[in-house]
Amino acid sequence: MHRYLDKGIDFSNRDIISITDLSRDEILYLCEIAADLWEREKSEQRNALRDELKGKTLAYMFFEDSTRTRTSFNTAMRELGGSRDGFSGKEGTSLQKKESVRDTLMMYWANHADIIVMRHPNDGSVQWAADVVGIPVINGGDGKNEHPTQALLDLFSLYLGNDQSLDNIRVGFGGDLAHGRTVHSLSLGLSHFQNPQIYWATEDALGMPKDLEQLLESKGVKVFREKTVQDVLSKVDPYSYYMTRPQLERMKGITQAQIEELLKKYRITKETLRDHAAKLLHPLPVNSELAEIEISAYYTKNQGFFRQAENGVLLRKALLWSILQTESYTPFSGYLHPDLEHGNNRLVRHKTGKRKAGKFIDDIHSGISIDHVARGYARLIADKLQLSERGYSSAPIDMEPKDDKSFVKSSLDTLTERELKQIALISPEATINIIKGGKVVEKFVYLLCQNDNCITRVVTEDVPPKFYHDGTIRCRYCRKPYAFEGRKIQPKEKEAFIAGLPKVIVPIVY
Amino acid sequence: MHRYLDKGIDFSNRDIISITDLSRDEILYLCEIAADLWEREKSEQRNALRDELKGKTLAYMFFEDSTRTRTSFNTAMRELGGSRDGFSGKEGTSLQKKESVRDTLMMYWANHADIIVMRHPNDGSVQWAADVVGIPVINGGDGKNEHPTQALLDLFSLYLGNDQSLDNIRVGFGGDLAHGRTVHSLSLGLSHFQNPQIYWATEDALGMPKDLEQLLESKGVKVFREKTVQDVLSKVDPYSYYMTRPQLERMKGITQAQIEELLKKYRITKETLRDHAAKLLHPLPVNSELAEIEISAYYTKNQGFFRQAENGVLLRKALLWSILQTESYTPFSGYLHPDLEHGNNRLVRHKTGKRKAGKFIDDIHSGISIDHVARGYARLIADKLQLSERGYSSAPIDMEPKDDKSFVKSSLDTLTERELKQIALISPEATINIIKGGKVVEKFVYLLCQNDNCITRVVTEDVPPKFYHDGTIRCRYCRKPYAFEGRKIQPKEKEAFIAGLPKVIVPIVY
Amino acid sequence: MHRYLDKGIDFSNRDIISITDLSRDEILYLCEIAADLWEREKSEQRNALRDELKGKTLAYMFFEDSTRTRTSFNTAMRELGGSRDGFSGKEGTSLQKKESVRDTLMMYWANHADIIVMRHPNDGSVQWAADVVGIPVINGGDGKNEHPTQALLDLFSLYLGNDQSLDNIRVGFGGDLAHGRTVHSLSLGLSHFQNPQIYWATEDALGMPKDLEQLLESKGVKVFREKTVQDVLSKVDPYSYYMTRPQLERMKGITQAQIEELLKKYRITKETLRDHAAKLLHPLPVNSELAEIEISAYYTKNQGFFRQAENGVLLRKALLWSILQTESYTPFSGYLHPDLEHGNNRLVRHKTGKRKAGKFIDDIHSGISIDHVARGYARLIADKLQLSERGYSSAPIDMEPKDDKSFVKSSLDTLTERELKQIALISPEATINIIKGGKVVEKFVYLLCQNDNCITRVVTEDVPPKFYHDGTIRCRYCRKPYAFEGRKIQPKEKEAFIAGLPKVIVPIVY
Repeated sequence: MHRYLDKGIDFSNRDIISITDLSRDEILYLCEIAADLWEREKSEQRNALRDELKGKTLAYMFFEDSTRTRTSFNTAMRELGGSRDGFSGKEGTSLQKKESVRDTLMMYWANHADIIVMRHPNDGSVQWAADVVGIPVINGGDGKNEHPTQALLDLFSLYLGNDQSLDNIRVGFGGDLAHGRTVHSLSLGLSHFQNPQIYWATEDALGMPKDLEQLLESKGVKVFREKTVQDVLSKVDPYSYYMTRPQLERMKGITQAQIEELLKKYRITKETLRDHAAKLLHPLPVNSELAEIEISAYYTKNQGFFRQAENGVLLRKALLWSILQTESYTPFSGYLHPDLEHGNNRLVRHKTGKRKAGKFIDDIHSGISIDHVARGYARLIADKLQLSERGYSSAPIDMEPKDDKSFVKSSLDTLTERELKQIALISPEATINIIKGGKVVEKFVYLLCQNDNCITRVVTEDVPPKFYHDGTIRCRYCRKPYAFEGRKIQPKEKEAFIAGLPKVIVPIVY
Repeated sequence: MHRYLDKGIDFSNRDIISITDLSRDEILYLCEIAADLWEREKSEQRNALRDELKGKTLAYMFFEDSTRTRTSFNTAMRELGGSRDGFSGKEGTSLQKKESVRDTLMMYWANHADIIVMRHPNDGSVQWAADVVGIPVINGGDGKNEHPTQALLDLFSLYLGNDQSLDNIRVGFGGDLAHGRTVHSLSLGLSHFQNPQIYWATEDALGMPKDLEQLLESKGVKVFREKTVQDVLSKVDPYSYYMTRPQLERMKGITQAQIEELLKKYRITKETLRDHAAKLLHPLPVNSELAEIEISAYYTKNQGFFRQAENGVLLRKALLWSILQTESYTPFSGYLHPDLEHGNNRLVRHKTGKRKAGKFIDDIHSGISIDHVARGYARLIADKLQLSERGYSSAPIDMEPKDDKSFVKSSLDTLTERELKQIALISPEATINIIKGGKVVEKFVYLLCQNDNCITRVVTEDVPPKFYHDGTIRCRYCRKPYAFEGRKIQPKEKEAFIAGLPKVIVPIVY
Repeated sequence: MHRYLDKGIDFSNRDIISITDLSRDEILYLCEIAADLWEREKSEQRNALRDELKGKTLAYMFFEDSTRTRTSFNTAMRELGGSRDGFSGKEGTSLQKKESVRDTLMMYWANHADIIVMRHPNDGSVQWAADVVGIPVINGGDGKNEHPTQALLDLFSLYLGNDQSLDNIRVGFGGDLAHGRTVHSLSLGLSHFQNPQIYWATEDALGMPKDLEQLLESKGVKVFREKTVQDVLSKVDPYSYYMTRPQLERMKGITQAQIEELLKKYRITKETLRDHAAKLLHPLPVNSELAEIEISAYYTKNQGFFRQAENGVLLRKALLWSILQTESYTPFSGYLHPDLEHGNNRLVRHKTGKRKAGKFIDDIHSGISIDHVARGYARLIADKLQLSERGYSSAPIDMEPKDDKSFVKSSLDTLTERELKQIALISPEATINIIKGGKVVEKFVYLLCQNDNCITRVVTEDVPPKFYHDGTIRCRYCRKPYAFEGRKIQPKEKEAFIAGLPKVIVPIVY
């Protein structure tokens, strides 16, 4: 805890959402502390920091099952003297009573949690958590998106195997590079360092996505595709070979024989490793049925994945200590931050097409009309808004065969955010016209993140859609890019929208 | 911890079963301590009492899922330095092995629990728990009956909003007043104080039950039904509006459209609260699908339910501290208290109808006959007692068309309590005649609590039925009144029965 | 902690797999410490040892649900100042991701567990656990095999009731002696002491197994079968009567009436116990539906099972303290011990039958042929090995009608341990011939434990089959005997096999 402790790095009260949020120096700082803890572990000083976080509490909110990550955080917290409370899986919790993530988060903050580790099936959910509560939040896995402490412990494992440095690392990848978030995050983490080289070989359908490869190359990471696992191993000696579980369930129509054939080519056995020095890493669990790492490989000098698991404890201990070591605590606010109320997702449209709009305006005088609805979806929107049940006098639905669009008009005087989101989910192009006294006073498209799994698209969660523009328009929550391609938006409208966006994810400060 | 600490109030070793068991002074005492803890929370002294309950253990026994209540107690115990252990939900416990509540309770006491918090689906189950174990028991919710710490934290929330007093409170109620136990308990809690006023508006089917309204009026609580939520809000400013989740699943045959219509009238939105000062309370969780509190209302100055959740932690901390602060502990007894063996539910019948009884007596000489069986149920009783399988020589079943009653006679020389309970469940009027040497030596009706959900009616739990008479005959466990209406019991028999009952729930002392 | 503490007994770092591994002195040592803890309990010194295991952590790995055993260990650990972490049941764990027991164990060791308590449905699983990790492992129940801490607490209960001695104990057994592992283990535990006498009465189908009775007699335990429970009780006064839950679900075709009849004869009631002094013990839970102990018996002076539950806490506290009291800890190895890689289960066959083998050898020159396959199973083996999919040129399957055996031949050059196990599961007699350069270079039978429920037979667990020979050939894991009866193995082959086996279960030392 020496070199980097002097560099003024400060993790106090820090959220850990994505590995890309951490700088080179911050990653090295955590590795250095973890390495120090490793020295203590070897010299029987496991409990040396047992009073450091006394009186602090970690809340684990695992909306999806987890033993490994949860246990690792528990161990880290325990060895720092802190407490822990929370839930794992949907059993035994009020989630069955349909509580929102937001309310569950507030509940744990009200219960004096000092830090939250959260896993949730939706991308972007943990950024939302960080927005909702004033205590630090660590991402324990948000959908298919990120799992930054896994990336950190993987980096730490490479660091220990490379004379406590992360420069000039050569790492091999195998198994599933298409679906596993671990190799993505680890690759991105390596991009901070000098001369990182990645070698991989796997089935086409499980290969590294082209866009990731391009992103990595643009960040200075050299990525090489090899033909065989042997080729990869010969390139990465004496560094590491990182295997992940093939997520075969995601390969449609694959037969059992094909699975066996594929595993035969990529499975790691004692034979595979013969004459190689590379350490075998794996985020675990190994699937004992598929046996992507065959049992014979467990008994080689290359096996490094169990120590990697312990590295997870050490790294998380370093992280929790860094975030929570300060004396004070963040009292419960009791309220949601006002910045969370509204999204910044309304793209203002120019009020053109007067004639047509005029016709609607004449009809309804004051109310709401929705045009540019995808043809055939007007009825669904009207049903969702329950126009007829609500008894509004003028809620007809017309079709416009001319431009393949439909529209909805109603005497509603307002739409809730939830209703706007439901409309946008049905028809992303829909343009909302708010009409008052015979005039269109507002005209906008309610933009939604285009990532199907993003938390902002879950209606009952009421997460307001927000974007930022770091060159690309991105969702604040899942950080996926937003594409205007194929939409009838005028360049000026788009420009004005972008001009209103922040350049970065501005933190919510309590 | 000043004013009331001097008044000699003593919570040591106290069971908390019902809010009605607490006096005005006791409620104020807990509020005062909790308010003191709130001051400490604000001045960063959250952990000031961290050594108070060191070495004490809370066992949570949640036979029904709970996150909120359990987490709140956990936090309270943790911040007082105590430990906790237990279960939540039926998963992962021996309940699947059909263990009785009694035995599970004894198991936790044998495991040196110092206090138990229990939730169970049967009314009266927690009084039974308090009878079984010699350590204090807190009711975390018994069926539809009581949830006293929720009432206490609600009272504490009102107390904080009313210059630390509970006199002259005006509170509004909305949502579901028919099925929610929280508003019942809170109303009863308010009855201890000066000039309480309740205003409510909701759908007829979800309205406040007439008998509760009458009970409250009799205790000096003024209850006003208003037409709209707006009317209620205008009456209770600047106090509190208490919303509960509409339990629509209990309204038979309701359509989705009717639900929407109903919610539209009673849902709380930003609009609803405009121009009002009342704090919005809610026991949580809010149902994110129904959204009885719409998201817009979360962002108003009226939102008070998150702070209310933290108040739960503070109040429970005050309660646990008050009950457990003394040095010593209650050693495990190892046995069930002898007072638990027998009920006091046998209504002795006069031995009339000699002639008829004589006929049976002649027939069986020594044995048991059961008369006044509801017509058509004699066979069921004989089956339940397995008269034929048991091989008794004379176990015929006769019918008495004259008075629409059946009877059972047998050469059994004894009936277990469980058998008596099974008979009473089949035919509550059944009269048991114990015949020895040709004479009826005992003749009684085995009275059972008439509340279908009472723990005393669960055969496998073996809870002996007990009653007390505080003007009304009540079940010791669920406290529901027992009605003799429609039963052919002679006034003198009833009088003698009542004379044998205690006037209050006499505690079991270990 | 006086008498035996002086005898140099040392439990440091000890695995507790079977009650039979403990000596007379070791059992008395634990009882003495537990008795001392009982004295402390009575004199309000429950928390006297609260700092003894500070910084130590118990990991509970309950692959099957448990409240009782887990809670008891938790209490013990808590009162010694230690921490605990783990899982119970399959919910909420990575087991759903098909992780092997081996990897889950390594994960908990990597998470700095100091001791593991494990329950698992497979016999022998806990010996495997002890082999895998370098920290002590306590058996919390492995399949139908052993539950040694239950036996210890039962012995301790007898010890307390017999003036702190285990000599001259007379104990009665009732309920289910055929399926319950508790009475087996307790009986075996008693065999260490002077003049133990067992009296039992129950239904034939639930009676004590003949082989256990013989084993006990051979160890000096006198076993008497009595006609009635009353007979048993009169023999064991003033000692103990040990009741277990009748596992009626294991009695095929039993009717409800037969169950009732059976329970009527063996159920313990107040009446049963009248005039007896014997303490009623039961491992709990009592089944509240069957009520093998009727509620009336709970209220007698004989009831001893609740105190027995507390004895479990005291005994486990003594055990954990004895194992973990030393200062240091066992650092995580990071690897599996090399001794775990291979089994010792290959019975080498003499290379007879040259002519026939020669024919195959000619055919395949180099490869593997499997003969002595049970007739009709060759195809299944070929399918399991995926001979056709693997594209080997010569993989025909022939039948040998002459000797009712089939064989498989292939050009495979190697078989994995998992493949060998799969072959042995299909056809235990199968002989593997490894052929290189036209010669049979290896010829063996891959012996598998014959206990269907043994962990070594679960393919995905990859536990290498191992045997030892203490007069009988036994499985290292479940300790069940291996029988050669009916197998065409030559005496010399068998002798050579036995000569290669260790005489005892040699511990794996890290």
